[in-house]
Amino acid sequence: MASISQKARLMPASAIRKLLPYADAAKKEGVKVYHLNQGQPDIRSPKCALDAVKNFSAANVSYSHSAGLMELRKGLVEKYYKGIGIDLTVDELTVTIAGSESVNLALEITCNPGDEVIVLEPFYTNYNTFAFMNGLTLKAIPTDMRKGFQIPSIEEFEKVLTDKTKAILICNPGNPTGTQYTKEMMLRLGDFARKHDLFLLSDEVYREFCYTDEPHFSAMSIPDLEQNVILIDSVSKRYNLCGARVGCIVSHNKEVMAAAMKFAQARLCPPVLGQIAAIGALDTPQEYFDAVKEEYIKRRNFMIEGLNKIEGVYTPLPMGAFYTVAELPVDDCEKFAKWMLESFRLDNATTMITPAASFYRTPGMGRNHARIAYVIEVPEMEKAIRVLEAGLKAYPGRTI
Amino acid sequence: MASISQKARLMPASAIRKLLPYADAAKKEGVKVYHLNQGQPDIRSPKCALDAVKNFSAANVSYSHSAGLMELRKGLVEKYYKGIGIDLTVDELTVTIAGSESVNLALEITCNPGDEVIVLEPFYTNYNTFAFMNGLTLKAIPTDMRKGFQIPSIEEFEKVLTDKTKAILICNPGNPTGTQYTKEMMLRLGDFARKHDLFLLSDEVYREFCYTDEPHFSAMSIPDLEQNVILIDSVSKRYNLCGARVGCIVSHNKEVMAAAMKFAQARLCPPVLGQIAAIGALDTPQEYFDAVKEEYIKRRNFMIEGLNKIEGVYTPLPMGAFYTVAELPVDDCEKFAKWMLESFRLDNATTMITPAASFYRTPGMGRNHARIAYVIEVPEMEKAIRVLEAGLKAYPGRTI
Repeated sequence: MASISQKARLMPASAIRKLLPYADAAKKEGVKVYHLNQGQPDIRSPKCALDAVKNFSAANVSYSHSAGLMELRKGLVEKYYKGIGIDLTVDELTVTIAGSESVNLALEITCNPGDEVIVLEPFYTNYNTFAFMNGLTLKAIPTDMRKGFQIPSIEEFEKVLTDKTKAILICNPGNPTGTQYTKEMMLRLGDFARKHDLFLLSDEVYREFCYTDEPHFSAMSIPDLEQNVILIDSVSKRYNLCGARVGCIVSHNKEVMAAAMKFAQARLCPPVLGQIAAIGALDTPQEYFDAVKEEYIKRRNFMIEGLNKIEGVYTPLPMGAFYTVAELPVDDCEKFAKWMLESFRLDNATTMITPAASFYRTPGMGRNHARIAYVIEVPEMEKAIRVLEAGLKAYPGRTI
Repeated sequence: MASISQKARLMPASAIRKLLPYADAAKKEGVKVYHLNQGQPDIRSPKCALDAVKNFSAANVSYSHSAGLMELRKGLVEKYYKGIGIDLTVDELTVTIAGSESVNLALEITCNPGDEVIVLEPFYTNYNTFAFMNGLTLKAIPTDMRKGFQIPSIEEFEKVLTDKTKAILICNPGNPTGTQYTKEMMLRLGDFARKHDLFLLSDEVYREFCYTDEPHFSAMSIPDLEQNVILIDSVSKRYNLCGARVGCIVSHNKEVMAAAMKFAQARLCPPVLGQIAAIGALDTPQEYFDAVKEEYIKRRNFMIEGLNKIEGVYTPLPMGAFYTVAELPVDDCEKFAKWMLESFRLDNATTMITPAASFYRTPGMGRNHARIAYVIEVPEMEKAIRVLEAGLKAYPGRTI
């Protein structure tokens, strides 16, 4: 039988999604599953975005320009980025098939197979996948949960630097940590990138989900680093349009944008109906973001307090996004997560979490860590936490 | 300055789209440009597809399963493929980001870097791009315009076969040729693939655009080749929803589908609003396809007759899709196409065509060939042909 490629064979399966069959099996038995595992928010999309889709009146859905509809590109530049202090021309922005394509493109454009990319551990697990797909090695610098997963000192970066290091890939605010990086640390990181002429790939898809008073400091605002910064952004994330699959890649580096254009042409165009929703979303009133933020802060506070009240559980207070990483009193979070779905029921319900080991690169790290998403409403979350607590007490691999 | 990757540097720009800036410049001057260059049909999408989008009533656009919405997968299996005699289970179909992702996935899953893929020349130019992106070599077998670009004898395939040959990639009906392959030739091709245990990657995105009485014969119908065939399909193409970016990859080979799933997970999910349109499109009545076909046959006949009437022009009668390849009496079609956009005007109008050299792999082949799309209405087409004829007469690089 004709054999598949080595790449297809070795390609890692999604760590986030591999427990889904167990959840499906539980649901088939009639068990209620509380999902603390996924970043799929229940928040409404802005009305203006949904209306734009409803009002789509063209006779057919034709291709857009490979770089996206001009109305969307202009809108993003003028209505969105200008408003947050990032000055761009339309040529410096290409619409992508969401943040996923942006990350992959950023790596593909900057790195040759065999090159190394510095990441901060724990990091979004799909960075592993995209690194694998491009033949790259991620060099992970551990961050400290007790210090809120902040960027460590630049000495730590110097330690992992080799002559193969080509880029730094960060996520700010972070998935899975929820950490918002300080301006001071971003500037120091910028100094490091400038000194070694590294690309700084900045995944800021959760930018509108920041809960501190300090404004979000974008990598695009680091002085004298214009040619090195590539911004990875998502429109669908920002407006709770995850399934719209619309994002963008942004850079002042002309060579990078010319390359992005060539890759964009190969897949013809980004999804047009999603782009229509995104154009509508550009008119989202500030009150929408304020209300969403308020809701997430409420959920976050409830979740963090609830988790830290459980014996043996620790999680820091995340400052952005809608995840937190929690240390659980278990031998192995993957075993525990599977056990919860297969064997543990409280009032015929169970709670699903994402084991965080795959968010780490250093072997053994994060084995007792879980990524917890606070994307469900507080009353549901309350039940989910209660079930989690009872599960942790009953789990045979409990460590305390 | 940090340098971009070798891949980004060497990545070919889209041959189809590289003339667009010249067209834009002409339009800015107020010149009317007749587009015979692109596969962007003006045909209405089915009402049921557009209505499905208008009636989308969820509170937000959330992720779908990485393999697509179950309703769409089931619908494709039961309402579409069953109806054309292809029996599938839902697990044998993964929804993709249109045919582009399907082609790339099929190559990525089956071939290692350095492997060879047999194609029939002229072929869809983006096959070059996807081969480049995966480090593959296309081995092109020339086909004969005077024989309607049909599949040549199997001896020609044996000639290009090496120990690195891993797959055959065909497009049926063909872009750019419009050739529909006969059942007999497909079976012979199947024998060849079986004998050498090659994957047969069959791009059938134009399946519903066949204009012969002979039914389209899918590679999926070749006996005893189930484990080797991968079907590349497009929903957006079939229903004039090009911008919806929804297609699928289909195979009875479990290993292939398991690999497709891993790659699908990396990009989270296919565009959901496009999937909603595609679900609606599944109810498209047969009359829609009949009317579209009738319209295309009218356009095709008009175009082919019109082209062949021009002195020095030859094109065969295409049997499917909405393109034809024409031989023009010019030194170089790329120069000619550019000259038309930059320098030639008739009644303040010009005609845009796609130079076909990039659809060939053999150096020098296709230099005087153009891909002509018949996707505009007959009255417009009439004017486009008149301008093309006048341009050919006035062109300094004319060869007759």
